[in-house]
Amino acid sequence: MKQINLFTKTRREAPKDEVAKNAQLLIRAGFINKEIAGVYSFLPLGLRTLNKIVGIIREEMNSIGGQEVSLTALQDKSNWEKTGRWSDEAVDNWFKTKLKNGSEAGLAFTHEEPLTVLMRDHIRSFRDLPSAVYQFQTKFRNEERAKSGIMRCREFLMKDLYSFNVDEKSHAEFYEKAKQAYIRIFDRCGLGNETYVTFASGGSFSKYSHEFQTLTEAGEDTVYIDEKNKIAVNKEVLNDEVLADLGLARVTLVERKAVEVGNIFSLGTKFSDALGLNYKDTEGNAKPVIMGSYGIGPARLMGTVAEIWSDEKGLVWPESISPFAVHLIALFNESGTVRKEADELYKKLIAKNIEVLYDDRDCQAGEKFGDSDLIGIPIRYVISEKTLKDDSIEVKDRRTGKVEMVKLGSL
Amino acid sequence: MKQINLFTKTRREAPKDEVAKNAQLLIRAGFINKEIAGVYSFLPLGLRTLNKIVGIIREEMNSIGGQEVSLTALQDKSNWEKTGRWSDEAVDNWFKTKLKNGSEAGLAFTHEEPLTVLMRDHIRSFRDLPSAVYQFQTKFRNEERAKSGIMRCREFLMKDLYSFNVDEKSHAEFYEKAKQAYIRIFDRCGLGNETYVTFASGGSFSKYSHEFQTLTEAGEDTVYIDEKNKIAVNKEVLNDEVLADLGLARVTLVERKAVEVGNIFSLGTKFSDALGLNYKDTEGNAKPVIMGSYGIGPARLMGTVAEIWSDEKGLVWPESISPFAVHLIALFNESGTVRKEADELYKKLIAKNIEVLYDDRDCQAGEKFGDSDLIGIPIRYVISEKTLKDDSIEVKDRRTGKVEMVKLGSL
Repeated sequence: MKQINLFTKTRREAPKDEVAKNAQLLIRAGFINKEIAGVYSFLPLGLRTLNKIVGIIREEMNSIGGQEVSLTALQDKSNWEKTGRWSDEAVDNWFKTKLKNGSEAGLAFTHEEPLTVLMRDHIRSFRDLPSAVYQFQTKFRNEERAKSGIMRCREFLMKDLYSFNVDEKSHAEFYEKAKQAYIRIFDRCGLGNETYVTFASGGSFSKYSHEFQTLTEAGEDTVYIDEKNKIAVNKEVLNDEVLADLGLARVTLVERKAVEVGNIFSLGTKFSDALGLNYKDTEGNAKPVIMGSYGIGPARLMGTVAEIWSDEKGLVWPESISPFAVHLIALFNESGTVRKEADELYKKLIAKNIEVLYDDRDCQAGEKFGDSDLIGIPIRYVISEKTLKDDSIEVKDRRTGKVEMVKLGSL
Repeated sequence: MKQINLFTKTRREAPKDEVAKNAQLLIRAGFINKEIAGVYSFLPLGLRTLNKIVGIIREEMNSIGGQEVSLTALQDKSNWEKTGRWSDEAVDNWFKTKLKNGSEAGLAFTHEEPLTVLMRDHIRSFRDLPSAVYQFQTKFRNEERAKSGIMRCREFLMKDLYSFNVDEKSHAEFYEKAKQAYIRIFDRCGLGNETYVTFASGGSFSKYSHEFQTLTEAGEDTVYIDEKNKIAVNKEVLNDEVLADLGLARVTLVERKAVEVGNIFSLGTKFSDALGLNYKDTEGNAKPVIMGSYGIGPARLMGTVAEIWSDEKGLVWPESISPFAVHLIALFNESGTVRKEADELYKKLIAKNIEVLYDDRDCQAGEKFGDSDLIGIPIRYVISEKTLKDDSIEVKDRRTGKVEMVKLGSL
């Protein structure tokens, strides 16, 4: 893409009311726009990164047999009353609204209820199981506070997967597959080293659930990590019994701040009992389906990457989720030779399916470099009169700062 | 995809409260699920078709220079008050809700206001224009009635494009480009013959707007079409002055029912005046930006295709938006030879990147053919003991019903 056609401009300063580093950087670089506190729009660069994260998650969900759907935000209250999750006492972050006929509707903060009801039309016997269904869909949560940028939003994209199995054993097998897929996702998005599988409260149907906690001072959670075993325990459940259970020693644990970038839950028969999702077993007896739920917020993940992979100059995207692979910066000269060579190089890169942002603007080198550092594309190509004297371009790694000259012919 | 892994089941009967043909067929075939009246989820087959429509629209929007973003549903009322569109008297289909702090928020039914405000941060001078920004985003409209299936929803995906130009002349040029892109979109989605560029009310800033009206008895609009010139006039604006203006004769016009599958509007300076979106011209004077807006509902388009391209047996997808290109139906025999050949053919098709739904279920031929007719994939391959005796498969065109035998080796 030619940068002259990119409508967003960078900013020197973040809006004064924006306290989160991730949102400050992403707003300054033109990735997102704040609409209301905790409600952010995604602009072309931000949407490209978000879509890459979505693409990685989709691949991993498909790899474990997930089938993609898209459920709705508007929710009829009747299904939620059956599970006890309609009242504002039980769930304190509903956004509710009214249809013209006066009936109440909620904006889904999760989708166990509608999906369980939907599956009643499609699951009849043990032959229809196992099944795993997922979506990328906008969730609404009426948060009291929203000061963490895109790491905690009132409206946000969520990938939620739900699993349906005949028994605890096959559920446990799928749960483990999903856990491994989650580990791969955070790894592929550049958070592998900082992200810990974390034991957390399991609710009524299993001893533990698992959170994926990424270490950062910007996180709202406190976890105790065991670096050697690469596991962690959420402070909320840490006690001697849990430590013994997990074979961990209190002395090897280190307290850290972290952000929950994903979580997986065993739901047992909580929803299938309440909403009547049964299957006929091999002997024709009706049995409740065993369920699990598995969530990741792609925008929260993006915000977490922005917190961790950034420096005083701006963002530093991992290659896998950068809006572009290469930032081509041309420092034009009066004779036009640089523009000619840069245009040609741009065309060649496009022809090779390399995603390139081409800074073809008529502005000073300093502005181009500053913007490039802020936007944070991992590889920068600089082409100028000086580099062309040597038939070369300068290639700079955004993360390491390492620079090398590369002959145009050998690119 | 193996059909045994597709979690959706077909149904013989549509739900009794579903009166629209498009929704009846799409629910029976497992493409969509009704959550509330006018609120539908998309299941794997339906999401595949919806995504193909989205893909076609995205290509055409990119081809006219559109830059993709994603704005939010939750809206702060202040911007809407400035344009006079917050009150329920001015706009009667708002869904509104409340934040925890008691302040009101609306769920966007369109996005002129937030995008105009956003563009103030990015448009400074004539050098930043023209610009065209689009999104695929969920709109909420609190419709009084919702009986047209996915052709009129309370929650629906919309592609909305907004254009920003320095003057009326460059706006008119872009508007014409957008009109041509729209014509291509409906053409590519299989509605070219039935869709008419239709003159409609222009509002305060231009004489006409243009609707794209597709002829179908299921439509809610009445249009007068001139078949020879392939244009139409919405009944709402039809009068002698308009006829003279457009060079049409009343006698050549035919009254038809139609559904509005798209619309394009010149907005003039309505929003830029109200919200202060100005640019500096070549002489440094501040001038309001000239805007246009351009909408298509991908799900409404899908519903319209279902109304028009269907028969008593089910759906009949155009190739471009079918969930799969080929429906491979294997009629298994006891010796297992059919399964072996079918598995092999499936693998070959996948290797050639052909999207194939492989009916590998253990059920009767009649059920497989019935489901296949209902789902409506354009090409059906049947492989059975009988066809294999001749080293062949049967190839059937869903639309024409034409059948031919094709040697396995020559596929």
